Amino acid sequence: MGDKKVKLSNPHLKEIDSDKLYHIGFASSDNLKEDFGDVKFVCLGGSSGRMKRFSQMLCEELKVKFNSNISIEDFTKSDRFSMYKVGPIICASHGMGVPSASILVCEMIKMLHYADVTDVTIFRVGTSGGLGIDAGTVVVTRRALDHKFEPFYEIPILGKTQRFPTGTDDELAKELQDLCGDDIPVRYGDTMCANDFYEAQARLDGPFCGYTSEEKMQYLHDAHKAGVLNVEMECTGFTSLCRRAGIRVAIVCVALLNRLNGDQVSKGEMYHVYERRPLVLVSRYICKKLKDSHYSK
Amino acid sequence: MGDKKVKLSNPHLKEIDSDKLYHIGFASSDNLKEDFGDVKFVCLGGSSGRMKRFSQMLCEELKVKFNSNISIEDFTKSDRFSMYKVGPIICASHGMGVPSASILVCEMIKMLHYADVTDVTIFRVGTSGGLGIDAGTVVVTRRALDHKFEPFYEIPILGKTQRFPTGTDDELAKELQDLCGDDIPVRYGDTMCANDFYEAQARLDGPFCGYTSEEKMQYLHDAHKAGVLNVEMECTGFTSLCRRAGIRVAIVCVALLNRLNGDQVSKGEMYHVYERRPLVLVSRYICKKLKDSHYSK
Repeated sequence: MGDKKVKLSNPHLKEIDSDKLYHIGFASSDNLKEDFGDVKFVCLGGSSGRMKRFSQMLCEELKVKFNSNISIEDFTKSDRFSMYKVGPIICASHGMGVPSASILVCEMIKMLHYADVTDVTIFRVGTSGGLGIDAGTVVVTRRALDHKFEPFYEIPILGKTQRFPTGTDDELAKELQDLCGDDIPVRYGDTMCANDFYEAQARLDGPFCGYTSEEKMQYLHDAHKAGVLNVEMECTGFTSLCRRAGIRVAIVCVALLNRLNGDQVSKGEMYHVYERRPLVLVSRYICKKLKDSHYSK
Repeated sequence: MGDKKVKLSNPHLKEIDSDKLYHIGFASSDNLKEDFGDVKFVCLGGSSGRMKRFSQMLCEELKVKFNSNISIEDFTKSDRFSMYKVGPIICASHGMGVPSASILVCEMIKMLHYADVTDVTIFRVGTSGGLGIDAGTVVVTRRALDHKFEPFYEIPILGKTQRFPTGTDDELAKELQDLCGDDIPVRYGDTMCANDFYEAQARLDGPFCGYTSEEKMQYLHDAHKAGVLNVEMECTGFTSLCRRAGIRVAIVCVALLNRLNGDQVSKGEMYHVYERRPLVLVSRYICKKLKDSHYSK
C-alpha cells in the first residue's frame, strides 16, 4: 500500500492546541496514532445494532482467515454514535440523514488525520428503497445524486449555498461488483439522497401527503430514467466529505423493497438475509485486500 | 383538558390496512390505544442517554409528587431511537439533524393519532450553541429560523422545494419562562437550525473551512441581530411538523457555550449541570400541569 494521508483543509486548526472531537469523545491530544494509526478501512452505517453485528462478523472472518487473535474493541465515548475496532477496521454507526452522518464523517476524518492513517477506504453499508429493482438487490453506487438528480451536495455556508461534487471510486466499485458472485444480486447505478423518509421520498404513507399516486409515480419514474436505482438519506453529504478529504469511498446499500410497487417497509422473513448482504460483500472485499497485503496480526 | 386530536393530512392512509411505523417498530393494528391512549406529553431530545436520564427523573418526580406507583417502561422496538413511557409521558431520542428527527416526529404523530391521544404537548429538550448569551442559559424558542433567519422549513417534494412555516406556542413558552425561578437563567428568543455542526454553523474547527474568522463573526453577529440566541440542528423541521399536526410544541435548549467567544465544546465540570436545566424546566411544567389536572395514578 502507498502513503496517501487524510487531508484536512482548514488553516484555523493549527491555532488549536488540542482539537476536541465533541461527538465522538476524543481529542487530538489523545493517543490517536497508537490507538488508530493502523486503520485501513472504516465501515459506517445508520443503525448501531447493525454495525455491532458487522464488527462481530469481521472479527470472526479475520480470526478464521488469518488465524489471528483479534477481538472487538468498543471505543464508544459518547452515546451519539457506536464504534468498534476490529484490527485495522473501524465499524461505526452514523445515525440517519446527512446532518447526523456529516458529524460522524467530519470527526472521523479529523481523527484519521491526527492518527496519521494512510490509504484508508470508507464504506457506507446500509438499506434503501429500490427503484425498478427486486428487493434484496445490492446497489453499488455510481453517482450520489440530490433530489434534482444532480451529483452535488449543497450546504449553506455563512448564509450562501455552496455546492460540492459527490463521487465514489470507480475502481473500488468495480472490485466490489466482481466479488458478488452468485449469492448476492448486484447492480451498479445511481443513488438518490433524500432529506426525509416520507414526503422527500415521494411516499404515500407519511402523516402528511399533498400529492396523488400518479404524481408520485411520475417522480419515481423520472428518477429511475435519470439512472437512480435506489434512494437513501446520506449518500451526497457522505461522499462529498470523503472526496474533500481525498478518501476512497464506496456506498453499498441493499434495496428492501421496489418503490415502484409500494411504500411500506416491513421486517419480513427475508429482512435479515437482505440486510446482511452489504456487510458480507464489504467483508469479502476487506478480507481480500488484507490477504493481498499479507495481513497477519 | 379538552379533546384536540392529533391531525393527519393524508387521504392515502385510509387505503392501508395496518400502517407500519417502520423506524419505531409499531403498526396501527397494534394495541396503541391501550398502550399510549393516556399520553399527554412527549419529550424528545437528540441523545439516547439523556432521554433515559430524563425518564428516570420524571419517574422519581411523579412518585414523590403524586405518591404514585409509577415506573419506566422501555418500549424500544428498534435501535434507531430509544423510547420510554412514564405514566402519561413519552421520552424518546430523535438523533441529530432534521432528517433523523423528522422520521421520529412523523411516526410519533401517526402513533399518537392511531392511539386517539388528545391535547398532547411535544417538547424538544436539548443542547445548543449560544449567541451573545452565557453558557448555561436556557433558551425557550420564540421562532425557529433557517440559515437565512426566516421562520420556515423547506423541503423538496417531488423535486420542487416547498416551504412550511415553523412556529412554537407563545402561551406555552410564557408558562415555561415563568417556571425558571432563580436557579435557571432563561432567555426567550429565536433559534437557528443548521444542517451540520461545522461549516453550516460557521465554526472554524471542522475538517474543512474556507472562510476567515472575520467572515464567521460577521455571520454570527448578523444572526444575533436578527434575533437568534442559539443554534441547533432540529428546530425548523421539528416545529413545522408539529404545527401541521396541530400539536402544541416548545423548544427548550441550553447553550453550552457562547459562540461569539469560540467554537470548541468541551464536557467540562458544568456540562452535566447545564445539560439538566432543560430537563428540570420541562419536568416542572409537566408536574404543574398534572397537578392542575388532578393526576393521581
